[in-house]
Amino acid sequence: MIASPSLKAAAISPRQQYAQAFSRVRRFTEELCRPLAIEDYVVQSMPDASPAKWHLAHTSWFFETFLLSPADPSYRSPDPLYTYLFNSYYVQVGERFSRPERGLLSRPTVEQVYEYRAHVDRCMAALFERADDALIERFAPVIELGLHHEQQHQELILTDLKHMLSVNPLRPAYRAAPTNRTVAPAPPEHRWLSFDEGLYAIGHDEASFAFDNESPRHQLFVHAFRIGSRLITNGEYQRFIDDGGYRRPELWLSDGSKVVEAHRWTAPAYWTHEHKHSKHFTLHGLLDWDPNEPVCHVSYYEADAFARWAGARLPTEAEWEIAAVTVPIEGRFSDSEYLHPAGASATESEGLSQMYGDVWEWTQSPYVPYPGFRPASGAIGEYNGKFMCNQMVLRGGSCATPSGHIRPTYRNFFPPEARWQFSGIRLAEDA
Amino acid sequence: MIASPSLKAAAISPRQQYAQAFSRVRRFTEELCRPLAIEDYVVQSMPDASPAKWHLAHTSWFFETFLLSPADPSYRSPDPLYTYLFNSYYVQVGERFSRPERGLLSRPTVEQVYEYRAHVDRCMAALFERADDALIERFAPVIELGLHHEQQHQELILTDLKHMLSVNPLRPAYRAAPTNRTVAPAPPEHRWLSFDEGLYAIGHDEASFAFDNESPRHQLFVHAFRIGSRLITNGEYQRFIDDGGYRRPELWLSDGSKVVEAHRWTAPAYWTHEHKHSKHFTLHGLLDWDPNEPVCHVSYYEADAFARWAGARLPTEAEWEIAAVTVPIEGRFSDSEYLHPAGASATESEGLSQMYGDVWEWTQSPYVPYPGFRPASGAIGEYNGKFMCNQMVLRGGSCATPSGHIRPTYRNFFPPEARWQFSGIRLAEDA
Amino acid sequence: MIASPSLKAAAISPRQQYAQAFSRVRRFTEELCRPLAIEDYVVQSMPDASPAKWHLAHTSWFFETFLLSPADPSYRSPDPLYTYLFNSYYVQVGERFSRPERGLLSRPTVEQVYEYRAHVDRCMAALFERADDALIERFAPVIELGLHHEQQHQELILTDLKHMLSVNPLRPAYRAAPTNRTVAPAPPEHRWLSFDEGLYAIGHDEASFAFDNESPRHQLFVHAFRIGSRLITNGEYQRFIDDGGYRRPELWLSDGSKVVEAHRWTAPAYWTHEHKHSKHFTLHGLLDWDPNEPVCHVSYYEADAFARWAGARLPTEAEWEIAAVTVPIEGRFSDSEYLHPAGASATESEGLSQMYGDVWEWTQSPYVPYPGFRPASGAIGEYNGKFMCNQMVLRGGSCATPSGHIRPTYRNFFPPEARWQFSGIRLAEDA
Amino acid sequence: MIASPSLKAAAISPRQQYAQAFSRVRRFTEELCRPLAIEDYVVQSMPDASPAKWHLAHTSWFFETFLLSPADPSYRSPDPLYTYLFNSYYVQVGERFSRPERGLLSRPTVEQVYEYRAHVDRCMAALFERADDALIERFAPVIELGLHHEQQHQELILTDLKHMLSVNPLRPAYRAAPTNRTVAPAPPEHRWLSFDEGLYAIGHDEASFAFDNESPRHQLFVHAFRIGSRLITNGEYQRFIDDGGYRRPELWLSDGSKVVEAHRWTAPAYWTHEHKHSKHFTLHGLLDWDPNEPVCHVSYYEADAFARWAGARLPTEAEWEIAAVTVPIEGRFSDSEYLHPAGASATESEGLSQMYGDVWEWTQSPYVPYPGFRPASGAIGEYNGKFMCNQMVLRGGSCATPSGHIRPTYRNFFPPEARWQFSGIRLAEDA
Repeated sequence: MIASPSLKAAAISPRQQYAQAFSRVRRFTEELCRPLAIEDYVVQSMPDASPAKWHLAHTSWFFETFLLSPADPSYRSPDPLYTYLFNSYYVQVGERFSRPERGLLSRPTVEQVYEYRAHVDRCMAALFERADDALIERFAPVIELGLHHEQQHQELILTDLKHMLSVNPLRPAYRAAPTNRTVAPAPPEHRWLSFDEGLYAIGHDEASFAFDNESPRHQLFVHAFRIGSRLITNGEYQRFIDDGGYRRPELWLSDGSKVVEAHRWTAPAYWTHEHKHSKHFTLHGLLDWDPNEPVCHVSYYEADAFARWAGARLPTEAEWEIAAVTVPIEGRFSDSEYLHPAGASATESEGLSQMYGDVWEWTQSPYVPYPGFRPASGAIGEYNGKFMCNQMVLRGGSCATPSGHIRPTYRNFFPPEARWQFSGIRLAEDA
Repeated sequence: MIASPSLKAAAISPRQQYAQAFSRVRRFTEELCRPLAIEDYVVQSMPDASPAKWHLAHTSWFFETFLLSPADPSYRSPDPLYTYLFNSYYVQVGERFSRPERGLLSRPTVEQVYEYRAHVDRCMAALFERADDALIERFAPVIELGLHHEQQHQELILTDLKHMLSVNPLRPAYRAAPTNRTVAPAPPEHRWLSFDEGLYAIGHDEASFAFDNESPRHQLFVHAFRIGSRLITNGEYQRFIDDGGYRRPELWLSDGSKVVEAHRWTAPAYWTHEHKHSKHFTLHGLLDWDPNEPVCHVSYYEADAFARWAGARLPTEAEWEIAAVTVPIEGRFSDSEYLHPAGASATESEGLSQMYGDVWEWTQSPYVPYPGFRPASGAIGEYNGKFMCNQMVLRGGSCATPSGHIRPTYRNFFPPEARWQFSGIRLAEDA
Repeated sequence: MIASPSLKAAAISPRQQYAQAFSRVRRFTEELCRPLAIEDYVVQSMPDASPAKWHLAHTSWFFETFLLSPADPSYRSPDPLYTYLFNSYYVQVGERFSRPERGLLSRPTVEQVYEYRAHVDRCMAALFERADDALIERFAPVIELGLHHEQQHQELILTDLKHMLSVNPLRPAYRAAPTNRTVAPAPPEHRWLSFDEGLYAIGHDEASFAFDNESPRHQLFVHAFRIGSRLITNGEYQRFIDDGGYRRPELWLSDGSKVVEAHRWTAPAYWTHEHKHSKHFTLHGLLDWDPNEPVCHVSYYEADAFARWAGARLPTEAEWEIAAVTVPIEGRFSDSEYLHPAGASATESEGLSQMYGDVWEWTQSPYVPYPGFRPASGAIGEYNGKFMCNQMVLRGGSCATPSGHIRPTYRNFFPPEARWQFSGIRLAEDA
Repeated sequence: MIASPSLKAAAISPRQQYAQAFSRVRRFTEELCRPLAIEDYVVQSMPDASPAKWHLAHTSWFFETFLLSPADPSYRSPDPLYTYLFNSYYVQVGERFSRPERGLLSRPTVEQVYEYRAHVDRCMAALFERADDALIERFAPVIELGLHHEQQHQELILTDLKHMLSVNPLRPAYRAAPTNRTVAPAPPEHRWLSFDEGLYAIGHDEASFAFDNESPRHQLFVHAFRIGSRLITNGEYQRFIDDGGYRRPELWLSDGSKVVEAHRWTAPAYWTHEHKHSKHFTLHGLLDWDPNEPVCHVSYYEADAFARWAGARLPTEAEWEIAAVTVPIEGRFSDSEYLHPAGASATESEGLSQMYGDVWEWTQSPYVPYPGFRPASGAIGEYNGKFMCNQMVLRGGSCATPSGHIRPTYRNFFPPEARWQFSGIRLAEDA
């Protein structure tokens, strides 16, 4: 649970604890939007992305729909159309406004959306105020889900803004780069860490919060494998490019070749084609490109082709998780001043580094249900299960993921051509 | 010239006269935007429309590019990229930002765009201040063109906003409907006004301002024709619909049938399908539909099909102009409180009514050059000539046209499927 | 009428005359198909083109639908579905098979289509046999229309086959080039022929057969103009290319620029990009490109851009017709051994040459109804009128037009981007 | 190996054995084409399908490219362009003719394609004639691969023809239905067969021929599961439809809902919408629809939605294989007179039935490499590995699969929206 650290620190009631967690998460969403001009909230730069305004409203809609309304039949939304406008994909809740047209809505205004949030927050505060233990217990799963859901949208706010700002020739920064930013040191040598074959268990044990797609925890047989000690860097990826990587079809999945050709990809997203790719667009504007930083904004196809070029492969999600549980959850998250993946530091040279934060790591595992998976019943069960086709699993979180949101069992998923997330590469190979 | 009425009224110099006209037109653009929330300036609801913010900037860019820069080589734009961002289609000026992506730009902000306008206005004021007669004489054509150009964008601001607001399920109004709005009276009987065959001259005589496409004035032989005394009304158009008009291919041009099928048109744009089309979306929100108001927001294909159904045809642009010069320039323009076409009044029952303002009238004339037409040389010559293909001529102005902007010789043009302009129907027939 | 020359030569009855004309035209269609392999009849290489098999069947369907069925209610088609399969666009006749999918039909087989033709021909022969004068008189307009209609499809068979063969990397020839083919001589100097301003009449006088769109003959006022003495050659067009013609947007209509960019045009259709365009694909396979032959397979946009580059313009259709009536109908038609436009010969140097045959000449006139135009009533009236939008008029016929099919008043029409017809360039200018 | 049964039966040399297998497989391809008219060979009815002519040529190209050329550097193809025209997707072999445009090629003619086949067959016969044991041993893997490859195209010839004939309103049959065809008996009760959890091995042991994607054989841990005793029938699927199956989004994967909406699916492919789906199009023309036959021509999305509606799920490919090895390889294959899946017979009621032939069975397993998978090096390695993304595994073969071509380890794969293969449904559930 999001509030769990503080829970241990102080003797406060579950009710207070949830109220504080709610307040903290909701506030962080608005903090992320503080650097924005009103105009920045409105634009949708591609169908996969949403306007910041929509994220702000949709996360409120979630609490309204799955908590306030069930808890109090007299609850009323500020506008009855908000249910239609801010439903993302929950078909059992009703019709939805067309996703690719979210950027066509100038109204409700940003101010009205913040009023909507304040309205929902007030109603939630009143609910926490009056709730007895039974009510808290009944709604605890939805509160937790709602807060983790909002954290997911916190990450999307950043990635969607990055995309939107990047298409603007003025190259505006989301916020200024930190003045103390230093060049990443040369990465430690890339080494292989070995794991034996055998029966392992992966998946979440349900002792604390997790999304439904992380369950059930289950046994599986894993063949001996080796996993890379750190992430692949920009410099290493540049060598793949220099070796003709994008023009050698034998390195690519067939669908990947088609995408490369259709979009004329020659480098990761946000790299500029001027000056030998020496710049890239970041949340802090157009910056010098650092060879020691992890490569990011690559698609699954590029990660897979790079791995093939390197004589290796991507890890499966089971391999990744088996390795990940051996290291603490440390890395760069969205509370960082510099919203970009960090290079591996020299002190990390002994073991497995960069497993959490920095960049989501593509695995070679299609996103499918775990054996025995059962989605929740009702609309809330539409959360994860219905996307279990045509997507690949990514693991570990990124520099845009809220601190505290990630777990070793966490399964993120995107279509193989997606590049606007902070997605990067870790290698694996058969032992 | 835009300023000419005041010129006659007072003994002011051409310099003062241009300065005043400039100030008046520029101010009216901003007045039109006064009802907008900041968010309303940003959205582009379809490729043919532009965000209000873009119109505000582009009209300033025009003066910057064709007047301030040529007049003063040391002139600097607030941002060198503005030339790229706010050029519409003048290829000789340089590269342009992709038109369908104008809505992806959150920056420059609305405030920055107003600063840009103020900057251009200050520089123009300084130019008027220091200009001698020779300079004014040299730049008079560009000033006049720039002001008429800005008036064209004033109309587009309204039509583009109407479209943008209409796709929003909240159905926001551009501004509130006037409280004194009354139902239109029953229209006078539709009658035919006859004109003899013979040699006529049409086109502009160049004694005052006109766009290049209105020249040269030239002779042509016109066969005897009759023209309808007034516009076709919503009620008359509804009878066409009730008679299966949209489902009878024999009434339609072949290309029109395809468009009707592809878009599933069953009524003019902005009519709602609920409640037997009894409502339509206007700049004042969703209003009751008035059978006595002129039908508007029809495409050329619909106007043509209606005419065929009525046993008539649309007028040619020559016929329209020959008739139009016989009546004064009166009608509803964008200085009206109610921004919607007005019904014909009983007092107009004797002659030709509604020729100006209210709705643009589709003619059956493709938009082609007049005999002897020569566009201006240089980039400014790209104004009209290069669009002389695949478009149809409309005449007479609309309720969104600025008062004083229209002339009998004025040629507007849109592709035959366009519906977002205030475009309506007047009939004609062979004598 | 198609049969009129022979009518004068011999004292044969109208019945015999029509029967002979019918037989002659129908036979020529099949002769054109003689070089084909069965496979060549089946393929549709683009939505605008149709398989040869379809042309063979559709022209038979025309006689079946508009003549055999009305003349004899007991008439039966070999298959009731043929009406559906072989209707082109006559919506009043009923539903039609989707045009772009004509190439998906392997059945009826070529043999069955020839049987269908033979069936229709037998029924027509029987009709001619038993018809009295009254019946002949009643159906004469439809017979004539059907034969001219079939001649139009004879031209399309050639142009559609040319396109289909051209997309095949094997570059098959429709038939071998004539062995006696010689290089075209240097063209005579391009000169201007002047015509005075004044009232002229154009259009068909209805003394003999013409399509409905050529009527009514009507007066119009034409300004003084000059027309080029001959067609523009490949060599002259190459100079336009060499001068950067395709890369200079100031030479192009706005829509033309978009088409050039979208299709990456850099030369007329069928020119090969290897070897400096020294080859082009013809109905006789890949041949050497001759600078003295007329340029062909250019779109309206290219013809218009070339004219602007040359400091001239394209003629209007009225100007073309006024000039064309002054010369005899001579030129290369589809009875030629070499199915490609011929160069102007030295002996033609004095006056206007190449007005008929060789290439269709783009005019700057959009295809619109003549004043007073009325299409025929019923389905047969869908012949021409419903296409009077978004197309440009071409005049004069081409080397693929059947000999005897062309007239000075003949109006052909295609969308401005069409290139698969034998379409070329003649210039005009204001006097 | 294809020839292995006969190998055991008689004392013939490997050389003879391969020569006989080669001859038998090649002949069967041509037998499958015997019912076709020449026109039927030419048409490509959708990008996923290929003309029969292309299949005939491509399978010959395979032997030419991977066997005749390497075996004899002096080998020459009848036309050097055949390499370009008939390469499917082997990028290391060179450029390929655009796949969706295979139907635009009227040439080479069918006769020329058969000559090409005969040429390759003669060269192969000569090779078999002169080959010593070393040569046979060296090329045995390629010969076997080439023959299994050709068998795959034998199946595609049938499925592609079925699609092509189905779009023709004449509804032609590939060949007449067998006269002795009887209505399928009521299927035996659907029962669940249980398998315990544990370590299993799946994949091919390489003792005989298999495709590379079936290797390596490897251990995996499988949870206890149950698998359906027989295939789902048309009648059972109709109940899903009647229960609103296609209109209940909660039953569908998100991508599935989009596909259903986009294509307006309301039933399996080839079911007719007239007469309550009482007919369906088959290789024998339009036939009565039999409720007892296995449902086929469903996409993965439909199979998955049906399973969810039935309270079950699809099997994984491992589950399927673990079950399949327990039964003999029996079922309806393409040597059947009636080319349609057969109903389960009463005698099969005891155990697992219909595992082989009849219909390919969708599994819930995305098509990914087995642990330790390595594709062959060189162009021939492009056979399977590069398609391991965005596709789902199907198992068991169909009534269009050549007899002898299927194995328990055989992995077929298609995108989840594909319906033109004979693909059906078997259920599974957790134990």
